[in-house]
Amino acid sequence: MAEDCLFCKIISGEVPSYTLYEDKDVKVFLDIFPVSKGHSLIIPKKHYDQITDVPVEEMDFLKKLPVISEKLKEVTGATGLNVVQSNGSDAGQVVGHVHFHLIPRFPEDGVMKFPPQSELNEQTAKDIIERFSI
Amino acid sequence: MAEDCLFCKIISGEVPSYTLYEDKDVKVFLDIFPVSKGHSLIIPKKHYDQITDVPVEEMDFLKKLPVISEKLKEVTGATGLNVVQSNGSDAGQVVGHVHFHLIPRFPEDGVMKFPPQSELNEQTAKDIIERFSI
Repeated sequence: MAEDCLFCKIISGEVPSYTLYEDKDVKVFLDIFPVSKGHSLIIPKKHYDQITDVPVEEMDFLKKLPVISEKLKEVTGATGLNVVQSNGSDAGQVVGHVHFHLIPRFPEDGVMKFPPQSELNEQTAKDIIERFSI
Repeated sequence: MAEDCLFCKIISGEVPSYTLYEDKDVKVFLDIFPVSKGHSLIIPKKHYDQITDVPVEEMDFLKKLPVISEKLKEVTGATGLNVVQSNGSDAGQVVGHVHFHLIPRFPEDGVMKFPPQSELNEQTAKDIIERFSI
């Protein structure tokens, strides 16, 4: 648990939340500032700031994403669903504890638009591939 | 492998791609219509239309998300990163094979904005919680 972390306080119960599901690894609760009906957050119970901080062996907290997504669609009557996760203030992250937004979508709701896309430059692609190894 | 699935053809090699990483479970490649430098896709090698179709025991394809994200930030010099996944045409899904967008972000790039949020209605929250069980 990290000091002054809102989501750690939600996990401990110090701050109340509308909890949909939890087990030893994960907590799922409604976002109190939803962008659509049923907008929820999936968070690991262990504190990590960004996804890049999560050890691979701790990624099990996301395993139930399919069943949580399915149930959320069923309960809200959503016809679509977006999963959105932000890392760093330049990506729009506000709370420094890894969280995946589940955003139920409905026909022509206009809630989220994918950003404008352009064609991939071949040299850029080759440069990235050359330097990418894990 | 599903017939007429673009991403299955990329996995089989029938359609070429700028591959960053692959193992038995997952393939990572550059989006040919990027929204930012290094925009990539993580896909499971097995064909599933939406995240809700993925059996929980097949979710290991996402396990390396932290290290892939870290390397992508390093290679592109990004200061932030968004993970975005869309299910169903009402959520903006175009290719019917589960894919997670990795979108590198840079200071004040204006690439993605989070949708407008409103305050959660208490009765709506209670109604959802009452019906949510997995």
